[in-house]
Amino acid sequence: MRSLESDLRRKIARLETLVDASMVFSGILDIDILLDTVMQKAEEVMEAEASSVFRIDEKRHDLYFITARGEKGKEAKEIRVPMGKGIVGWVAEHGKPLLVPDVRKDSRWFRGVDKKTKWVTRSILAVPLIVKGKVIGVAEVLNKKGDRKFDEDDLELFAALGNQIAIAVENASLYSDLDKLFLSSIRAIVEAVDAKDPYTRGHSSRVVEYALLIGNALTRDKDRLKEIEISAILHDVGKIGIPDKILGKPGRLTRREQKYMERHPEFSAAIIEPIELLKRLMRNIMHHHERIDGKGYPDGLKDKSIPLVARIIGIADAFDAMTTDRPYRKRKNTRIALRELKTHSGTQFDQRLVGIFVSEFSKQNPL
Amino acid sequence: MRSLESDLRRKIARLETLVDASMVFSGILDIDILLDTVMQKAEEVMEAEASSVFRIDEKRHDLYFITARGEKGKEAKEIRVPMGKGIVGWVAEHGKPLLVPDVRKDSRWFRGVDKKTKWVTRSILAVPLIVKGKVIGVAEVLNKKGDRKFDEDDLELFAALGNQIAIAVENASLYSDLDKLFLSSIRAIVEAVDAKDPYTRGHSSRVVEYALLIGNALTRDKDRLKEIEISAILHDVGKIGIPDKILGKPGRLTRREQKYMERHPEFSAAIIEPIELLKRLMRNIMHHHERIDGKGYPDGLKDKSIPLVARIIGIADAFDAMTTDRPYRKRKNTRIALRELKTHSGTQFDQRLVGIFVSEFSKQNPL
Repeated sequence: MRSLESDLRRKIARLETLVDASMVFSGILDIDILLDTVMQKAEEVMEAEASSVFRIDEKRHDLYFITARGEKGKEAKEIRVPMGKGIVGWVAEHGKPLLVPDVRKDSRWFRGVDKKTKWVTRSILAVPLIVKGKVIGVAEVLNKKGDRKFDEDDLELFAALGNQIAIAVENASLYSDLDKLFLSSIRAIVEAVDAKDPYTRGHSSRVVEYALLIGNALTRDKDRLKEIEISAILHDVGKIGIPDKILGKPGRLTRREQKYMERHPEFSAAIIEPIELLKRLMRNIMHHHERIDGKGYPDGLKDKSIPLVARIIGIADAFDAMTTDRPYRKRKNTRIALRELKTHSGTQFDQRLVGIFVSEFSKQNPL
Repeated sequence: MRSLESDLRRKIARLETLVDASMVFSGILDIDILLDTVMQKAEEVMEAEASSVFRIDEKRHDLYFITARGEKGKEAKEIRVPMGKGIVGWVAEHGKPLLVPDVRKDSRWFRGVDKKTKWVTRSILAVPLIVKGKVIGVAEVLNKKGDRKFDEDDLELFAALGNQIAIAVENASLYSDLDKLFLSSIRAIVEAVDAKDPYTRGHSSRVVEYALLIGNALTRDKDRLKEIEISAILHDVGKIGIPDKILGKPGRLTRREQKYMERHPEFSAAIIEPIELLKRLMRNIMHHHERIDGKGYPDGLKDKSIPLVARIIGIADAFDAMTTDRPYRKRKNTRIALRELKTHSGTQFDQRLVGIFVSEFSKQNPL
């Protein structure tokens, strides 16, 4: 038997871990990093072999893994658990924690996941994730290390941890919802601007897609990729300021109209100038029609003095322009358009970035 | 002297409070509610008479109150503390917690705030708020109740609480930054659409302002007010789809042009339709040209079957149209425009809402 003092000290140590954990993870708004950090901590504290977090899909009335750690985590992620089925389904339905010291002795135990993943579950501790009185998911740890069993003490601690996980997941969702709202809103408005001219319908969205082909090959950094995405969405927003009679002119533009049209990167930059958090993207947008040889507009910048993101958008923009119909010419097929990019790389376009685009585009669209 | 056991139990109780507190406040993304909840909890745990949280203003190189609780909280809020000055300034500059059992014996003590608020500080416990290695502010509790002094135990606990406060403040700021980004971005693009026609420059922003005059008189609910704001910003976004030659026509429109122009609420609604989180605002936007008597467009809805927010926007929109120049007429002065609203209330406009608008507008713009 343990003495009272060592019991109390143990309790303090575990509570301190909890306080510590909550500090680490309440500050993370990226849900993937967050859950991995949280559940790593949970496994440590609970001395568990594996862990998972499930989210309820209300429409489909089932649960899906949002994270699964441990040997068979990857395999598990593709499985869905019906509501009410198994330990996890029971916890989701009843909104109560559940301690199952030996799964073989519990009739609720659902072998489905073990069967598919070839993982052997011995014991489970599962708690509901509750936000504002509503069950949003379930967190569980599996198999206490050293062939021991989870006990009531573990349950109490994991339930507290579950509360923290629930709030953190909810915060991360709120943030990600707002982020989606922001992107989809500017995208919807820009698409409406593009759609005014049947020849440019969908243009900005395709430029985003092409720019991200290059971006994803260059970096895994989410902030940098977000910067590319937002700059690409907004690169032509200044066309709002170009009169219809120039924008939709069926023939070639006069010199004067052309000059006015060439001001659209400035107009785009001017629109985002008052937006504090987007200001730093102005140069990406302003310079997407510069050329490596300095013969572009508006400033005749050369080479690396053109911002990287502007050089990326320049390639994406030109490729989409070549591969869509214009009032005065038919579209080129993609093979010819890719060759054109290569022909003009080093003069109009950044050579290295064209190389990346051609290779990534060809990977995704095998001829 | 206290026994070891009671010491340990006391420590457990305080740690449990901390775990508890972190659950309560890490889930709140509204910074005002958040800080009030956090600091109330802090005062309780620390048995303090008052508390404040300061944020560093890097540009002005000083600190300002973001919350101040206690008798003199309201007075305190208007004061700014120079960086490096007083206990709070010292903590901000050094990034270290500070326990001052008796302020009269500490040379760093700055009487400025007490003097202005007529509050008497006896002891202070102040901790830096640190996020990713950077000091973003300071939290403090003042005067331990019952004429006692804060001790090292209090310091340890408050420092842990400080870490939680820092993360929560940072999360709330990130959320609020993104929210501002969302609103300012759609606003900037819509303003660019308005600015295409010199006669409608600034229109959507003024409609937001007028709609919120009514909204603020109806409710304090932030979500409802946000709904009014976003609907008002986007009410005319569909004008993107109206050709320049109709939108900017110097004379009266033909019947056919008029019919096309009257489709702009549908176009506006169509633009936001694909945006999951804005879908529920479609009806507010779609029906801002309906009339109470059913003679409006597009659906001839009557009375309360017109969504409340659409009725609000209808009034705001008409008032701005009347009080700005049009190609074919000069603007009315505001007194006459308000009278017009009243004349047409009960037929074109919602009577109660016109009453509120006229009274709120007159309060803010005394003749």
